[in-house]
Amino acid sequence: MEIAAGILEIAKNGSRKTRIMYLGNLSFDLLQKYLDMLVNLGLLEIRNGNEKMYVATEKGREFLEDFSELQKHAEVVDAKKRALERSLTPVS
Amino acid sequence: MEIAAGILEIAKNGSRKTRIMYLGNLSFDLLQKYLDMLVNLGLLEIRNGNEKMYVATEKGREFLEDFSELQKHAEVVDAKKRALERSLTPVS
Repeated sequence: MEIAAGILEIAKNGSRKTRIMYLGNLSFDLLQKYLDMLVNLGLLEIRNGNEKMYVATEKGREFLEDFSELQKHAEVVDAKKRALERSLTPVS
Repeated sequence: MEIAAGILEIAKNGSRKTRIMYLGNLSFDLLQKYLDMLVNLGLLEIRNGNEKMYVATEKGREFLEDFSELQKHAEVVDAKKRALERSLTPVS
């Protein structure tokens, strides 16, 4: 999920494959697998111009927003958990 | 944290040690360790009447409320995560 979100973030406004590969720090094979998957799922689309570009679709942008929401909520949960753990830690 | 919350929940309105042990499904040794810890932290207090009772303190009740909040938020995060995972699952 993190990798998918990372790729969509890089390709939010369109990106060539090589740029996604470098910025996403992904191997060629792994990237290709994810690009195919995201295109098949309708989260990413290919635009052919001078160069082949990958661009997040509306559905892809929604995925990114939901992922960002998830991360925010997960941070709140982590903070609450840490606070409760602290209250179970004896004061030394 | 789950064990501590379980004990405090059982002892919210006061409980004998044996009842906490049975309802909490805890060994005698483990229970004693937790009871001592919770008393030392000020989350639980001992009331001596006909029988020795353990009762959650105000701080203990606050811990329980915070723990319940944490669980609710964690469920929301889980639900959001599952929804995002579903959107990454190819329709077969």
